[in-house]
Amino acid sequence: MLKSITESPLFPIVNPKSIAFFGASNNISAMGTTQLNSLMDLGFEGAIYPVHPKEETVQGLRAYRSVYDLPEVPDLAILVLPTRIVSQTLSDCGKRGIKHAIVVSGGFKEAGKKGKALEKELIEIADTYGIRFIGPNCLGVTNSHHKLNTTFLRYEGPAGFIGMASQSGSFVTQMFDYLARRGLGFSTAFSVGNEANVDIVDCMKYLGACPHTKVIALYIEGIRNGRAFIKAAREISQQKPIVAFYVGGSEEGKKAGLSHTGAMAGPDKLYDGVFSQSGIVRAESIAELFDFCQVLACLPKPAGRRVVIQTHSGGPGASAADSCGRLGLELPSLSPETEEKLAPFIPHTGSIQNPIDLTFAKNPMDYFSNIPDILLDEKNADALMIYFLMPTAMVQQSLEQMGVAAERIEKKSVALIERLCESVSGLLKAHGKPLVGFTFRSLSDHFIKGLLRRNVPVFASPEQAAKALRALVTYKELSEKISSEAESI
Amino acid sequence: MLKSITESPLFPIVNPKSIAFFGASNNISAMGTTQLNSLMDLGFEGAIYPVHPKEETVQGLRAYRSVYDLPEVPDLAILVLPTRIVSQTLSDCGKRGIKHAIVVSGGFKEAGKKGKALEKELIEIADTYGIRFIGPNCLGVTNSHHKLNTTFLRYEGPAGFIGMASQSGSFVTQMFDYLARRGLGFSTAFSVGNEANVDIVDCMKYLGACPHTKVIALYIEGIRNGRAFIKAAREISQQKPIVAFYVGGSEEGKKAGLSHTGAMAGPDKLYDGVFSQSGIVRAESIAELFDFCQVLACLPKPAGRRVVIQTHSGGPGASAADSCGRLGLELPSLSPETEEKLAPFIPHTGSIQNPIDLTFAKNPMDYFSNIPDILLDEKNADALMIYFLMPTAMVQQSLEQMGVAAERIEKKSVALIERLCESVSGLLKAHGKPLVGFTFRSLSDHFIKGLLRRNVPVFASPEQAAKALRALVTYKELSEKISSEAESI
Repeated sequence: MLKSITESPLFPIVNPKSIAFFGASNNISAMGTTQLNSLMDLGFEGAIYPVHPKEETVQGLRAYRSVYDLPEVPDLAILVLPTRIVSQTLSDCGKRGIKHAIVVSGGFKEAGKKGKALEKELIEIADTYGIRFIGPNCLGVTNSHHKLNTTFLRYEGPAGFIGMASQSGSFVTQMFDYLARRGLGFSTAFSVGNEANVDIVDCMKYLGACPHTKVIALYIEGIRNGRAFIKAAREISQQKPIVAFYVGGSEEGKKAGLSHTGAMAGPDKLYDGVFSQSGIVRAESIAELFDFCQVLACLPKPAGRRVVIQTHSGGPGASAADSCGRLGLELPSLSPETEEKLAPFIPHTGSIQNPIDLTFAKNPMDYFSNIPDILLDEKNADALMIYFLMPTAMVQQSLEQMGVAAERIEKKSVALIERLCESVSGLLKAHGKPLVGFTFRSLSDHFIKGLLRRNVPVFASPEQAAKALRALVTYKELSEKISSEAESI
Repeated sequence: MLKSITESPLFPIVNPKSIAFFGASNNISAMGTTQLNSLMDLGFEGAIYPVHPKEETVQGLRAYRSVYDLPEVPDLAILVLPTRIVSQTLSDCGKRGIKHAIVVSGGFKEAGKKGKALEKELIEIADTYGIRFIGPNCLGVTNSHHKLNTTFLRYEGPAGFIGMASQSGSFVTQMFDYLARRGLGFSTAFSVGNEANVDIVDCMKYLGACPHTKVIALYIEGIRNGRAFIKAAREISQQKPIVAFYVGGSEEGKKAGLSHTGAMAGPDKLYDGVFSQSGIVRAESIAELFDFCQVLACLPKPAGRRVVIQTHSGGPGASAADSCGRLGLELPSLSPETEEKLAPFIPHTGSIQNPIDLTFAKNPMDYFSNIPDILLDEKNADALMIYFLMPTAMVQQSLEQMGVAAERIEKKSVALIERLCESVSGLLKAHGKPLVGFTFRSLSDHFIKGLLRRNVPVFASPEQAAKALRALVTYKELSEKISSEAESI
């Protein structure tokens, strides 16, 4: 495992100080131009040198006729060029002393026999000049912490903690908005393309050492070097969780992946084995991939499989219990101590059988403070799942009923909701036990947003919340297995 | 099967002209008051008679000291009273000639031995006076088309086409906002509670005949009368799709359901059998329940399992293909005719292997018109799945690049997006083949909202979209099986 990202051959690709950009122009709809624009959009702070055979300026930047005219040897070259001139350009970059590149251009291995030969040529040129490059047929890198985004879509959302390596390029970009809506973002995301020189294992190693990355997400269509993959992942996953979505699981997915990046997809069961040997938690969908990343990054490891469910509504509680049961999670009974502590908070209609169904709260505030505080203390349980229903309209109505003046209700409700979020997030920190929420309200609701902003995971259904908790348990069990195997050697 | 809802004993409960309301007061936080308020909120157009022992008016309505003082015999009595006075009140209602009631109050069968005896008493009173009643321990009925909502939450969203019968009460209310966000709504929704007199089968029969109901959703914790259930469902499902979510599937879910409404949950496999015999499509989660309702109500039956996927992005296309494969859907190759027709629209980077991956469109408009038009014509395919990525910002950017003046861009982009939605929805109508969309953007995006408003189903992930298509196939296969069994008798 790398001690520092500076040891990685990818470091200058992910953290360049200067970039030579090939293929951007003043034609605003050209792919290269779009990519240069999203780079500038995020406010990249280094030097950008567009190289263009004719233009004096490109997108307002001074352009250079050739790589030889650049005022310095840049850390990185980005090539968004027609296939036929990629080799020559990379070769020129090598001659000029550039050691790192991203080859966005397609038309290589994924495009048949002729492309395969071209890709071989590319590899040879890189070897000749000692160039490390990502691609071809990729979108490059997004490092939100370095204000670097070489893809064609604008980076939205916060500088995040999810490190990603993806064998689909556009997939990465399409997750920008998806994650931002949930208050999440990438630390560094790689679109690895055909992996002619840099592969997904190199990226994983980089992310393993990256201090901004709390969890690693992999989008896999086919692993090329199984042995190296398992070795690296096994080491990294002991320090940092890795979640993988493998798209070649079915025959249909396999075929689709194959034509998309030319990767070799293997039987689904084989991948199951590879992932569990590697300590990697497997996700069955893209949604799960990031659900799992969220809990693995934000929550402590659970001691075991026992879950308490807190609800004030029977249906959501029962669905949550059912989901937990299907996933092999257990719902323990409360200990007499907990029952005693809870008693003052439970109305006569409520149930203290797990799920703890309050039906209604004597004092609504208890639902976000005293009650979960007691449940997180339960010695028979390893995690807490809470159903959240707190529409802003409802809070405002309560305030109205409490006699708060109309003009103060808006402000008061915001303050109250923030206080509730603060309380829940405080409990999570204080108890060191996993806590996940679920709701049928929009994740954009004020209260839910407040929780997400504080890294309290809340999911849009009980099934998702239960699966996320299950992923925590899986990670813990895989890690223990690997660690005990290591000891027994 | 009922020919008309007027034949149903539930008709006056769902479509009352006048209501006696017991248990509302001027204490705004009382449950009864909240329920009366949401009834008034939706603009119920009949007469409401609050009955209160002391107040002259309740929530601004003239109140009556007892049921005997009412100016007419109302169609329906709603009881939100302390358990101990429910029997006496129902008995008084009977004496006054009221034939229909909703008993919201809890504390009956679900609350142990004493409650069980109370419930028996209630049933006897009803029998004595010929009263049909929903409950106890329920929230009653929401009939958005009749502006009736007896639950404690305000009804949000459109008057919809999903008929629902639920063994969890609060669940129904919590779906108001959930469905509204997706442009969906209930036609009539029942919270059946303990089913002491009216049961889920009665509700299903009503919904089967209800002209506003295009699809029936069931939330089941335990079926009491299996034979009657199967007989009714089998008949109805031949005319109108039924989707069921059964929460007692796991041991944990079973226990939770048990303590919640006192229903008997049976082994999961048994329910599998009951549902498929009944022609009912089973959902594995609440999210699936309404996903399936949406496609079953909005889309025609597919002829078979063969799906074409249209995408301009490899990753989402591959995930969609993988999801289809896992669910037993097939991805046929295009016929030579289709290939020929498509050729002019496919750029050199694109793939016409299924998934049809355009990578980019020569003319972006084709993606929403010519291309799906050709794919829906494919004789080798029974359904089309389209990946949608159309952020408003992107449309506005294109217009900017086309030289549209800044002040006209907002309006132009709205018009353009509406035109695209109209085009997709027109194709769906013209071809009579199922078409589902999927996206990773928010379902609140302008374009997606426009599609949903036109009853083009769009889902938040490829997995959801594939499962929804699979549900269509399942419904078709179950219906055919039942119909062929009926013929062979």
